[in-house]
Amino acid sequence: MSESVGKVEIISIGNELLIGKVLNTNAHWLAKRITSLGLSVRRVTVVGDDLDEISSAVKEAIQRRPAFIITTGGLGPTFDDKTLEGVAMATNRELEENKEALEMIKRRYEEYVAEGKMERFELTQYRVKMARLPRGAKPLPNPVGTAPGVLLEHEGVTLIMLPGVPGEMMAIFENSVLPLLRKAAGNMVFYETSLDITGIVESDLAPLIEQVMRENPYVYIKSHPKITEKIKRIELHLSTTCSDENVARQRIEKTIMQISSLISERGGKVQPIQI
Amino acid sequence: MSESVGKVEIISIGNELLIGKVLNTNAHWLAKRITSLGLSVRRVTVVGDDLDEISSAVKEAIQRRPAFIITTGGLGPTFDDKTLEGVAMATNRELEENKEALEMIKRRYEEYVAEGKMERFELTQYRVKMARLPRGAKPLPNPVGTAPGVLLEHEGVTLIMLPGVPGEMMAIFENSVLPLLRKAAGNMVFYETSLDITGIVESDLAPLIEQVMRENPYVYIKSHPKITEKIKRIELHLSTTCSDENVARQRIEKTIMQISSLISERGGKVQPIQI
Repeated sequence: MSESVGKVEIISIGNELLIGKVLNTNAHWLAKRITSLGLSVRRVTVVGDDLDEISSAVKEAIQRRPAFIITTGGLGPTFDDKTLEGVAMATNRELEENKEALEMIKRRYEEYVAEGKMERFELTQYRVKMARLPRGAKPLPNPVGTAPGVLLEHEGVTLIMLPGVPGEMMAIFENSVLPLLRKAAGNMVFYETSLDITGIVESDLAPLIEQVMRENPYVYIKSHPKITEKIKRIELHLSTTCSDENVARQRIEKTIMQISSLISERGGKVQPIQI
Repeated sequence: MSESVGKVEIISIGNELLIGKVLNTNAHWLAKRITSLGLSVRRVTVVGDDLDEISSAVKEAIQRRPAFIITTGGLGPTFDDKTLEGVAMATNRELEENKEALEMIKRRYEEYVAEGKMERFELTQYRVKMARLPRGAKPLPNPVGTAPGVLLEHEGVTLIMLPGVPGEMMAIFENSVLPLLRKAAGNMVFYETSLDITGIVESDLAPLIEQVMRENPYVYIKSHPKITEKIKRIELHLSTTCSDENVARQRIEKTIMQISSLISERGGKVQPIQI
């Protein structure tokens, strides 16, 4: 159990991602946000609006026992919004009408009518569909759209289903998901910095990185070669996750000093980068 | 076998994607390019620079029997470039030094020396590493960088490993991968268009989409709600994959006419969108 604390998986659902119509900015935003909280995203899976695909992706993720699985997309009223059905299938639960969710949806349409966006509304099957949650799940209020987010605890894994519209996804995340993740993360912080390296090729940098990482086991160093015009540069990214921000900073600073002198000795140039 | 023809999986490898440092533009570019060729991307999996994670992701993808698996990232000279080792593990093959690959790498460094980018070079273990391929694999020339791409046929699945640097990934794709995909796709074309819908909410659009899709089984219609300033709009995306471009266009046009009149009857407005 304790081994899985802190691990998060993201599942992005939507054909638009698989046909390259839409860039997966949701997964990027979530990954950055979750990492900054001191938790660790271990996998992102993107599948289409297909019940079997969604269900297998969720089932496989559950089997890897992360602390959290966060899905985006597929919560709306159309026939191809299949996330809740997929999660129900993966967790072997029935879908059932959730009163609290239905109330949230009803209130939203009442607002639309009050604002003159609609003349009147009925609770059609398409609207009720958004309130049919896997048994045991709870709705998370959507402050900017219609479909509520959904929270489900299943076999020690917390599943969180968010809409695919970025503004709705972010709003539900900040209001309802953030407190849960903070609690799971404890005091962990993620600390990172980048260096700009020129005058040395990546294959000559490789042994230096290895040496410095051996001596600084808590710091992760990754080289990102960049080709800017005719100048070859390498961005060297250093990061650590730690329960004390001062310790984190000290670790990174010590590593910067060591790698910088090794690179300088080989004729390379090191400069800080604003990230 | 024939059932899997045309299916493609993408596996993106790199911690930078899981910490939200880098947006996964590689998967987006590949998905768009592959879809436009008439093939179908079924899943994108993102994992970190971890041998077990890479190996399981590749193994799981192979078990789903797509025609192609395309990986990006993890082919370089540093310790955390582990893609080839992961593929070797997943396919139960040894890594062995590939003469052709080593020759490509050597030529590249000779060019660097000739261009004055390096004074001299040795074939260190870090450089030779990029030529250690899973047994039976072939290198694909990298016209803009050092690490070759890699092609491996395994149990009826074609695995293609590309670098993570976008310029290198795209160059190898266009030169060496495109002909293989075109051949697998036959004459298929992907045809798409988008409509801009206002004056109707998504839950009222849902039954209209269902009705029109029932009558146009080859056309896929997906609604994408957008919130632009105070105006709610929905982008309606229509697409089809077909072996005859004229037939594809006719299918889409017929669908446009049907959905447009249904939306107009309900008081909504439809306009074309340039995509």
